Amino acid sequence: MGYWNTRGLRGSALEEMINLTNTLYTQRGLAIVQKIPTPITPVEVNNINRTISKAYFGQQSTVDYIGVTQGIAICFDAKETSRQSLPLSNIHSHQIAFMKNFEKQGGICFFLVSFIQSSEVFFLPFSELKPYWDGCAMGERKSIPYDGFNKLYLVFNQKGFPLHYLETLGLFRCSQRVERNEI
Amino acid sequence: MGYWNTRGLRGSALEEMINLTNTLYTQRGLAIVQKIPTPITPVEVNNINRTISKAYFGQQSTVDYIGVTQGIAICFDAKETSRQSLPLSNIHSHQIAFMKNFEKQGGICFFLVSFIQSSEVFFLPFSELKPYWDGCAMGERKSIPYDGFNKLYLVFNQKGFPLHYLETLGLFRCSQRVERNEI
Repeated sequence: MGYWNTRGLRGSALEEMINLTNTLYTQRGLAIVQKIPTPITPVEVNNINRTISKAYFGQQSTVDYIGVTQGIAICFDAKETSRQSLPLSNIHSHQIAFMKNFEKQGGICFFLVSFIQSSEVFFLPFSELKPYWDGCAMGERKSIPYDGFNKLYLVFNQKGFPLHYLETLGLFRCSQRVERNEI
Repeated sequence: MGYWNTRGLRGSALEEMINLTNTLYTQRGLAIVQKIPTPITPVEVNNINRTISKAYFGQQSTVDYIGVTQGIAICFDAKETSRQSLPLSNIHSHQIAFMKNFEKQGGICFFLVSFIQSSEVFFLPFSELKPYWDGCAMGERKSIPYDGFNKLYLVFNQKGFPLHYLETLGLFRCSQRVERNEI
């Protein structure tokens, strides 16, 4: 995997763990998840060695991952923070719009947020991010504090999956059903 | 949109119609579908004007589009042919593997196949392509003949959508339920 200097490989350690988890999910028939590449438009292509000598970044991508697990469409983004909070400047309005539409269609959207200092990864449901995002737009705080993350939604390395987020997703869905008095 | 000379813009007229349809679907709350960009890895980036001076094509992409519509995860690929058949060399084994896994998880996979000569676009369910693919691997014919396409699954420009494939998807799902004696 190539490393470059500005965009697209932020959060790559986290991404590698997610990618490995996704590969294992596919192998074990638990989910299939596609990493969405950064949109890049080639302008000049060398057809002999298949390299690109000129290209530009296309429109911003929407989310990092889209897939399906046991009948549920999912999409999510990976975020890494070295602070004691998740700055909302990390998240863009077109991502919020995409996720809103995705949930409207019956999918489930979330973020996997890695706190580097404590080596913890949280599953952050879109519905829990949304109030912070709306608050920020109204001039309230510009980040989600560490304490704003639900400890129940910690993602662990377990059952052979480096970041077993499907387990946390299951927990989240269960709590949703409890809220709706379905259980 | 840039045009380049070898890869990635094959089928661009078809793709433009699909992209426009998808935009309208999102606006009208019928579906949200993400176009998957061709994976390209930048190696050298000019940080002043944000252009890429060296890059290479990454691993082959899996499918062209992934999304969700009314609770159903969908993924599909766009194919154009100027012949009276769809050559199976257009379709790659990693796409087949992806679609197989996607359907195993409860998603629906299909192809939108444009016959340039007759200006017709067919919705080709993965389940109908699969026997041809398997046959080809066993040394049988290397393409799907025009007559192999189900006329019921023609995709039309209707209700303001240039390629209203969701209508055809609905028809396909309905016929599946009939087959399973659910209707």
